[in-house]
Amino acid sequence: MKLKLEITAADGAARTGVVSTVRGAFQTPAFMPVGTRGAVRALSTHELAGLRTAQGSRAEILLGNTYHLMLRPGAETVAALGGLHRFTGFDGHMLTDSGGYQVFSLGPQVTDEGARFKSTYDGTSYLLTPEGAVEVQELLGADMQMVLDVCAPLPSTEAVLREAVERTAAWAARARAAHRRTHDQALLGIVQGGDSIELRRESAQRTVALEFDAYAIGGLSVGETRERMLPALHSALNELPADQPRYLMGVGDPLSILEAVSMGVDMFDCVLPTRLARHGTLLTDSGRLNIKRAEFSRSEAAVDSNCPCATCINYPRGLLRHLSCLGETTAHTLCTIHNLTWILGFVDRIRMAIAAGKLEEFRSEVAPVWSRMGPGLGE
Amino acid sequence: MKLKLEITAADGAARTGVVSTVRGAFQTPAFMPVGTRGAVRALSTHELAGLRTAQGSRAEILLGNTYHLMLRPGAETVAALGGLHRFTGFDGHMLTDSGGYQVFSLGPQVTDEGARFKSTYDGTSYLLTPEGAVEVQELLGADMQMVLDVCAPLPSTEAVLREAVERTAAWAARARAAHRRTHDQALLGIVQGGDSIELRRESAQRTVALEFDAYAIGGLSVGETRERMLPALHSALNELPADQPRYLMGVGDPLSILEAVSMGVDMFDCVLPTRLARHGTLLTDSGRLNIKRAEFSRSEAAVDSNCPCATCINYPRGLLRHLSCLGETTAHTLCTIHNLTWILGFVDRIRMAIAAGKLEEFRSEVAPVWSRMGPGLGE
Repeated sequence: MKLKLEITAADGAARTGVVSTVRGAFQTPAFMPVGTRGAVRALSTHELAGLRTAQGSRAEILLGNTYHLMLRPGAETVAALGGLHRFTGFDGHMLTDSGGYQVFSLGPQVTDEGARFKSTYDGTSYLLTPEGAVEVQELLGADMQMVLDVCAPLPSTEAVLREAVERTAAWAARARAAHRRTHDQALLGIVQGGDSIELRRESAQRTVALEFDAYAIGGLSVGETRERMLPALHSALNELPADQPRYLMGVGDPLSILEAVSMGVDMFDCVLPTRLARHGTLLTDSGRLNIKRAEFSRSEAAVDSNCPCATCINYPRGLLRHLSCLGETTAHTLCTIHNLTWILGFVDRIRMAIAAGKLEEFRSEVAPVWSRMGPGLGE
Repeated sequence: MKLKLEITAADGAARTGVVSTVRGAFQTPAFMPVGTRGAVRALSTHELAGLRTAQGSRAEILLGNTYHLMLRPGAETVAALGGLHRFTGFDGHMLTDSGGYQVFSLGPQVTDEGARFKSTYDGTSYLLTPEGAVEVQELLGADMQMVLDVCAPLPSTEAVLREAVERTAAWAARARAAHRRTHDQALLGIVQGGDSIELRRESAQRTVALEFDAYAIGGLSVGETRERMLPALHSALNELPADQPRYLMGVGDPLSILEAVSMGVDMFDCVLPTRLARHGTLLTDSGRLNIKRAEFSRSEAAVDSNCPCATCINYPRGLLRHLSCLGETTAHTLCTIHNLTWILGFVDRIRMAIAAGKLEEFRSEVAPVWSRMGPGLGE
């Protein structure tokens, strides 16, 4: 089913609106937490569902990693349990990636047929094909699924990027043809093309020609700078239909979110807030805060006295520092609660800025804080 | 301040009632979760505070481990942060042990002065004295603190047990004299004596003679069978004043709790429910359930469909099995939520059985389920 974005306000190329689905609706721009293996790392799903920003909004979409779920517990097992929503206990929207990103990070044998890789769990050999990725994701049963694409690292030669675009296009057509669960699951096409303006344009045009339910931009935030990323992103966005949501995969640093939204991106996922949390790095309006620093050992202050999250309401920095230094998993949980609340609240502020026609003002306020953090924490 | 137990109902030697403190009151019999290093392992304190049994009761007392807290972050740091309640974010009652149990497990050099040990964190040498333990616990600022005692392993020779009783008595007198924070903190004496009926009686009498605010029985559940434990416990209990709470340290298997309550014990702590949880072993009315078993991989059922905990309400056994097999910390959290809710509910049922004069009936119902699980998971 085609995903339709009803735009409620725009500011330049940036837009905010609502995407309707069989399950209901979600607001855009949207940040999607990553529930790698059926749950966000170190966070219970009921606690994720209970997170509220200062504006009262929540995580409306949870991402699941097909690579992990197809190997453990297996897509058939998830299907037998009623699909990802019942399996994970999350009743909001869910999206699964194709598994390609992780598979390509394992250095698979790639042929026209698909990508052959060895499981990181037990070494078993698997062949992931465009059709197989669709089928696995139909079994997983998220509301949105992604085509299998070829993600080239950056920098890559023109020839490597071109081959990725060609194979991505061929695989996209096969995925489109293989998709059966069209009544309740959206299939998203993915634009590749690395940092090449021309290839991004071509890849976007060829993807749009296949008429997907929505579109994603993949293969960015894979090591390049933001300056190198944004023109390629812009080139792709130019070709995508304005009335369907656009998802920039694996990007989640605040400034990149903001820049991408300014160009017309609607959806984001990234492990950045949760991974940083497990290392004791907290996101705040003043930038990153390393809670393990000795100066916080006797601090009675909350991480952010204006933050409504359970961590800021209940615990002093001194406790978070103590538990983080000891590596207690409770620290991972508490820092994850804060970082997800913060990034969801950051996206709230972007939506409000667009609605008020003040995105440029918001940008000049936050850009100095986040300019030194680059994109590139894809998982 | 002397802790007073107002007994509201009794059934044989078992009693249920309310203990009033400066902070408020708590019901007995009571099970106290262990917040080892400032938080229950794998559980946020706000989530602990939110746990509710089917009867609507909660964890009213949280235990903190002095050994860990005095080394990291240090008692002065906790005091600078406003004490354990503000440090941990727990607004119920708190109790700290003396640190002796962990110190004795390290094979310290013990003299009349105290126990010299090396920190497991960095090898630094420390001397823990009876006065020092009182002072550290005053800084930590729990509502109840424990005297430093000598805990002999079992089996031990009569001579070893006798020496432990003598030194425990001498140290208890010194702790009593050292206690300054008498206006808002109860100091509990500890009965030793191993599995000797005579030594338990003597140790109890000598402890009571010092007029503590309440009394604990230590040095049990250290490897002996329940059959060996109970007569020694009984011998100690005979000597303790009826109007003050009695705390059996480190015992938390369901049948031992029940047997001890039948003899007149009021308070328990144990890492058993939380440690089992992290190994994927769940407590249920039918006994232990190993959630990692393959048979649960496609089970849509809750662990216990009658349990009101967040785990049983939100997640199928299949998810718990999946996350537990992968060692995801989210599994530890979810299993901990269930096990603590179950054990708190078990103690609810004991209280209700006493009030109804049906403790023996309840015993005959649950004893067959739990008879094979021994005591002995002290930490």
